[in-house]
This record gives sequence, structure tokens and C-alpha cells, in this order.
Amino acid sequence: MPHIPLPEGIPGIVGPMMFSPETAKPMNELAEVLLRGPNSLSPGEREMIATYVSAQNDCYFCQTVHGAVAAHHWDGNEQLVQQIKLDFEGAPISERLKALLTIAGKVQTGGKQVTTEDVARAREHGATDKEIHDTVLIAAAFCMYNRYVDGLATWAPDQPEIYRASGKRLAEQGYLNSIDRPGLAQGQNA
Amino acid sequence: MPHIPLPEGIPGIVGPMMFSPETAKPMNELAEVLLRGPNSLSPGEREMIATYVSAQNDCYFCQTVHGAVAAHHWDGNEQLVQQIKLDFEGAPISERLKALLTIAGKVQTGGKQVTTEDVARAREHGATDKEIHDTVLIAAAFCMYNRYVDGLATWAPDQPEIYRASGKRLAEQGYLNSIDRPGLAQGQNA
Repeated sequence: MPHIPLPEGIPGIVGPMMFSPETAKPMNELAEVLLRGPNSLSPGEREMIATYVSAQNDCYFCQTVHGAVAAHHWDGNEQLVQQIKLDFEGAPISERLKALLTIAGKVQTGGKQVTTEDVARAREHGATDKEIHDTVLIAAAFCMYNRYVDGLATWAPDQPEIYRASGKRLAEQGYLNSIDRPGLAQGQNA
Repeated sequence: MPHIPLPEGIPGIVGPMMFSPETAKPMNELAEVLLRGPNSLSPGEREMIATYVSAQNDCYFCQTVHGAVAAHHWDGNEQLVQQIKLDFEGAPISERLKALLTIAGKVQTGGKQVTTEDVARAREHGATDKEIHDTVLIAAAFCMYNRYVDGLATWAPDQPEIYRASGKRLAEQGYLNSIDRPGLAQGQNA
């Protein structure tokens, strides 16, 4: 049961965002530009980083809904999402994305954990300044979204088909205006 | 030395925000509404929560600049800021703020750490749903800002007078447009 009264049957971050639309607006705008703005990192790569950090933070709602967005971008490959959560170094992804996931994992435990060597490894595999910047900020931002969702003890559905539908919708339509259509049938946000 | 090239002599979060103005915009809007929007928690109380969380995250820049903002709101009481960082239960602040700082500290370690008892204690001392919500989100948001600042290894000045000037400016003028006037003489942001 949530720590404050939230609309019933509204999953994850959408409940607190409906409770507080004035903070939801910049939070959704940040998700939109970070995960879907013009970038040499694909939306699928960025959603994988978000999913991995959310899994490290043990946030069920965020890792599941962003995992579904990521899978949608990766041709529905849900197995790849699971593999990245459990052991990304062994996953069939680029060395560049592995190096960026390493940086994201360090940021999740604390900003000071990122080393010069971590950044050098990413550069060796072709990562740009913007990609390194965005990886740090995606990881940092999901340390916020995850704590917002779990710090208020929000409710989350457990049916995979609900997350698949949300993943498809968010991958196609993005994060803006999502609290205007929060129903389960329409899916979830962030 | 920062992990990516950032403007020299620009402190803390302002460097990466100048590097990436498209993400800076919603991040500053979130800080503005969270810390300065209409609220039964005073801006000083909210800046104390932000400072405490930044100290728990060991982020020198954020705890120092937001500590200076908080002190400005509390009649220049820098000693109180230090006491809240070290032992808020023994500080001369309201029982309500102590209960909210307890919740903020739990969110800093992880959203799931917040208990029904923590929330009940805050309510006993008069905290509203919005105050509980905002406390959780301030704590969560500073887990983002702190990681952004430290995850990119940004530079921070060490002269207290610089932070005092920034604290005064931010307390009076707020967080919007801060990257348009980022010089040390003008102060820092978030």
C-alpha cells in the first residue's frame, strides 16, 4: 500500500506523477530528451542502460517497464534484456555498450566510483563525450526515478503482457503527456 | 580533472549543464518547483533536506552550495547546517523536519528502506501527504544531481565565500536560467 493516497490501479511512477503534475512535467521532459532525443546512442541502447540501473536498484516497476521498452527496440528480444541485467559482459552487445554499462553501474553505487580507466575503456571502444555524459546522467536520473517509485511504495502490476503493451507505446510515443492517459490498458510511464 | 571536457573554472553541476543545455532545462525546472514552488515546507526546510541528502551522498559541491542556500534562509546559521548534517536528531529543528529528514535518509540508501513507521512518525508531527511526497522526491532528485556532479568528476572551488555568494543568489533568484550566468563571481547552481 502506498505511503500516501494515490489513484487506485495506476501503476508505478504514474500515481505520484498524477499526485504532483508540477514535478511530473520536468521529470517526463528529462526522460524524453535523455532517452529519445537526437543521439548517437540508439533509444534501445539508452533504454538498456536505464533498465540495467533500475535492476541494480531493485526497482521492479522501472526495470520491467523500461526492459519492455528496450526489448521493443531490440526486435522483441526479452532474453537479451534479462541477460544484460544478469551478466552484460557475456551478452551479445557491442564492447562500447558494455563499457558504458560499466560506467552506469558505477554511477548507481555512487558518482565517485567512476574511474579514469572506466572512461578510457569506453573511449577505446568509440564512445564520445556526449555518450559518456548521457550514460552518467541516465544512470543518475534512474537513481531518482527508482527511489521515487519505491520510496512511496507504489503499486505495480505483475502481468508481463501489461508491460509489453506499455513498452510498445512508450517506444513509439515517448514520455511526454503520459499522465494524461495513465490507464492500465494504455500502459505506464518511466 | 573532469571525465569529459567541460568549461574551465565553472563549478560543480554548471559545467555539465552548459555541456548539455537540453537536459539542464528540465533539471533546473525540477529544482525550481521542488525547492521553491508553493509549499507548506519552507524553502529553507527543503534546502536542508537537499543538503542532508547531498552530505549522505558525499557530494562536496552540492552539500556546500545547498548548505549555503539553506543557511541563507535560516538567518545565516551555518552552524545549524553542519549540525543537521552530523546529527539532525539533536538539532534545534521541529520534530516534523526531523521525521522528514529520517525519510530522506532512507530514500538516499534506497527507496524500499522507507517504512510505514517512518511515515507514521512524520504524520504524528503534522506532515501532510504533499510534504511526505516532496521529501521523497527531493531526496530522490539529489541522488540524481549528486551522481551527475561526481560521476563526471566535476571541479568545485573550496572558498566558503564563493558558496555564500552563490547561496544568497540562489535563495533570492532561484534555479532557472542559472547556466546563462555561470561565472564564479555570479555563483553556482544546484
